Amino acid sequence: MAVNETEREAMSRALALAALGPRGVNPQVGAVILSPDGTILAEGWHHGAGTPHAEVDALSKLAPGAARGATAVVTLEPCNHTGRTGPCALALIEAGVSRVVYALDDPGAVSGGGAERLRAAGVSVEAGEQADAAHAVIEGWLTAQRLGRPHVTVKWAQSLDGRAAADDGSSQWITGPAARADVHRRRAASDAIVVGTGTVLADDPSLTARDGDALLPDQPVPVVIGSRPTPADAAVRRHPHTPLFFDGHDLHAVLADLHGRGIQSVFVEGGPTLASAFVAAGLADRVLAYIAPVLLGGSRLALTDIGVSSIGEAHRLTIDEWLPLGADLLAIAHPASLPTASTEGAV
Amino acid sequence: MAVNETEREAMSRALALAALGPRGVNPQVGAVILSPDGTILAEGWHHGAGTPHAEVDALSKLAPGAARGATAVVTLEPCNHTGRTGPCALALIEAGVSRVVYALDDPGAVSGGGAERLRAAGVSVEAGEQADAAHAVIEGWLTAQRLGRPHVTVKWAQSLDGRAAADDGSSQWITGPAARADVHRRRAASDAIVVGTGTVLADDPSLTARDGDALLPDQPVPVVIGSRPTPADAAVRRHPHTPLFFDGHDLHAVLADLHGRGIQSVFVEGGPTLASAFVAAGLADRVLAYIAPVLLGGSRLALTDIGVSSIGEAHRLTIDEWLPLGADLLAIAHPASLPTASTEGAV
Ligand SMILES: NC(=O)c1ccc[n+]([C@@H]2O[C@H](COP(=O)([O-])OP(=O)(O)OC[C@H]3O[C@@H](n4cnc5c(N)ncnc54)[C@H](OP(=O)(O)O)[C@@H]3O)[C@@H](O)[C@H]2O)c1
Ligand SMILES: NC(=O)c1ccc[n+]([C@@H]2O[C@H](COP(=O)([O-])OP(=O)(O)OC[C@H]3O[C@@H](n4cnc5c(N)ncnc54)[C@H](OP(=O)(O)O)[C@@H]3O)[C@@H](O)[C@H]2O)c1
Repeated sequence: MAVNETEREAMSRALALAALGPRGVNPQVGAVILSPDGTILAEGWHHGAGTPHAEVDALSKLAPGAARGATAVVTLEPCNHTGRTGPCALALIEAGVSRVVYALDDPGAVSGGGAERLRAAGVSVEAGEQADAAHAVIEGWLTAQRLGRPHVTVKWAQSLDGRAAADDGSSQWITGPAARADVHRRRAASDAIVVGTGTVLADDPSLTARDGDALLPDQPVPVVIGSRPTPADAAVRRHPHTPLFFDGHDLHAVLADLHGRGIQSVFVEGGPTLASAFVAAGLADRVLAYIAPVLLGGSRLALTDIGVSSIGEAHRLTIDEWLPLGADLLAIAHPASLPTASTEGAV
Repeated sequence: MAVNETEREAMSRALALAALGPRGVNPQVGAVILSPDGTILAEGWHHGAGTPHAEVDALSKLAPGAARGATAVVTLEPCNHTGRTGPCALALIEAGVSRVVYALDDPGAVSGGGAERLRAAGVSVEAGEQADAAHAVIEGWLTAQRLGRPHVTVKWAQSLDGRAAADDGSSQWITGPAARADVHRRRAASDAIVVGTGTVLADDPSLTARDGDALLPDQPVPVVIGSRPTPADAAVRRHPHTPLFFDGHDLHAVLADLHGRGIQSVFVEGGPTLASAFVAAGLADRVLAYIAPVLLGGSRLALTDIGVSSIGEAHRLTIDEWLPLGADLLAIAHPASLPTASTEGAV
């Protein structure tokens, strides 16, 4: 039985509900329960890890028996897995729902199989309605699922000849206002912003996403990696989010920890040592190099050593875009070995 | 008396004649002598330093008295200066020419004033006919006149992070075929190609302009700078032009010598030490950085030291174009202090 117009509208509503939930460990999901005549009986969405899934959130708003013969419209395939909550497929069956329309198949090996279980219980199931839109809502989550860690963007600013600063360390205004505004927009689109202790000690950055002096509505969680302590009066400690400090150099461990906190995308802003470590470890899913039309020469390199001794070991990139920003140029690239660009966090 | 159609056509012919002459110490000039009824009596062009100027070359083909009452159509203002040849203005007056149509004013302080002298002798003079086309023919010469030396393009190929090679020196295929073909076209459009002894000893380059394996019709004169000797069997010694070797590091002296040989444009192809020396000396009128989408890190920098210790001393550039070439990007730039881009040698 094809998806009808009422169900289609309910899916649009469910997608809007999904976006109300927080980005985190679990995907953002929305659900709408329709009566057999197409009236909306209840709405629900996932409020974050440890809380009910969207379908169960919606069902919980109905009196017992009220969902009998109803249709559940959900942005993600109902799960078939007992985690902190019971399997949603079972909850729908027990509530007497007779039809389920969903957008995206559940990509989880553990949680998948919900559609099959529903069909086995005689529920009519339609998959794929507005799948693209549903994919867009949870793209960051899907990417992190695929990678098994947050998606990593490594960003730096450099002179045309690859320097981060002049020999004495001065680097003000290497790039212009359009490039700096672009950085702030991309910070705001990331779940976390990551720097090394070297940058914290040298620059005392606030690690906020700003439009001029004003904070943007979305702020990344600030993360500092390295063994040297961050001073008590460091600007990062006044960030709207509590900063996370990782004592050590194990980037895989840091990313695993961040993944466990529901962070799906990180924006590595340097400095050169940390950026090079991410590239060397093969952990740069996307590279953003802001290139200023200036020559500096000297010893302050934007990237230091990345473990390449011969040309055959070069980190080859595929350029997604050479994007002029004022007088500067932004190179947006991903490792050439990856078939397509990851788009999470793009603005 | 305005320029008539016959004179206009004669100027187009004179421009074609000008281009027959060699680029060199003197500008390329063409001349056509028209009878009073508009018939072409004689044509001439400048065959290079020490030979007659174009007007005199044309007059020399006529019997004495044959130019009486004629019109001379010349691409450059007739000179008023006794050099290796006498002043052309005087030669035209003595031949009895009654009208002169020319394209460009003579920019030389010494040679200028020809139009005035002709008018004082009662000759009708029209200036500016097809001046833009005439300018284009001798643009390289005009630029070298203005600079007092050849126009200098400094070119290098680099990884996105500013390296010329991997740590072990290997650099094959940093840039792709489109970028390499572009380099060869620009070599062919230059009067000389300049490298340091380091590049000759490391790479044994042929310094020819090629299309695949075939030599392009125009070949730059190969120039090697540095005190170390170039081996007797070096490829550069088999270049169609005899190579010039300059023992020493004085770039101003080298450019003065090349200027004296009529070389109007040089293409500096490295290596890093020589390219950096040209930039540091403020002798890079144009910068061409071919940027490959690859990260290398390490110690083999495309530019080394260029005398910048603080950001205020940075060599700021104005980008004329960010030009994608296959997977690579060519940054075409000139020093920001110069008001406009020099275009000599552009392809
Ligand atoms: N151009 C740009 O885009 C840009 C951006 C940011 C900063 N900067 C400049 O960069 C300079 C600071 O450079 P930096 O390289 O010292 O800064 P950094 O990369 O921020 O910090 C380096 C430190 O990070 C820690 N670290 C954490 N994980 C690491 C790993 N896997 N490998 C190595 N080190 C790791 C180490 O700290 P511990 O020793 O404490 O363990 C290391 O000393 C400043 O002058 C700043 O202005 C430039
Ligand atoms: N990526 C690229 O675009 C590119 C292009 C060309 C070469 N390369 C690579 O560059 C490497 C060679 O590097 P390199 O830097 O040694 O080569 P280089 O710049 O060609 O040669 C350096 C030498 O030039 C001489 N020289 C002349 N004028 C000078 C001045 N004003 N200041 C300083 N030196 C001056 C000196 O030679 P003396 O000591 O003999 O006096 C100096 O040692 C090779 O591996 C080559 O493959 C890369």
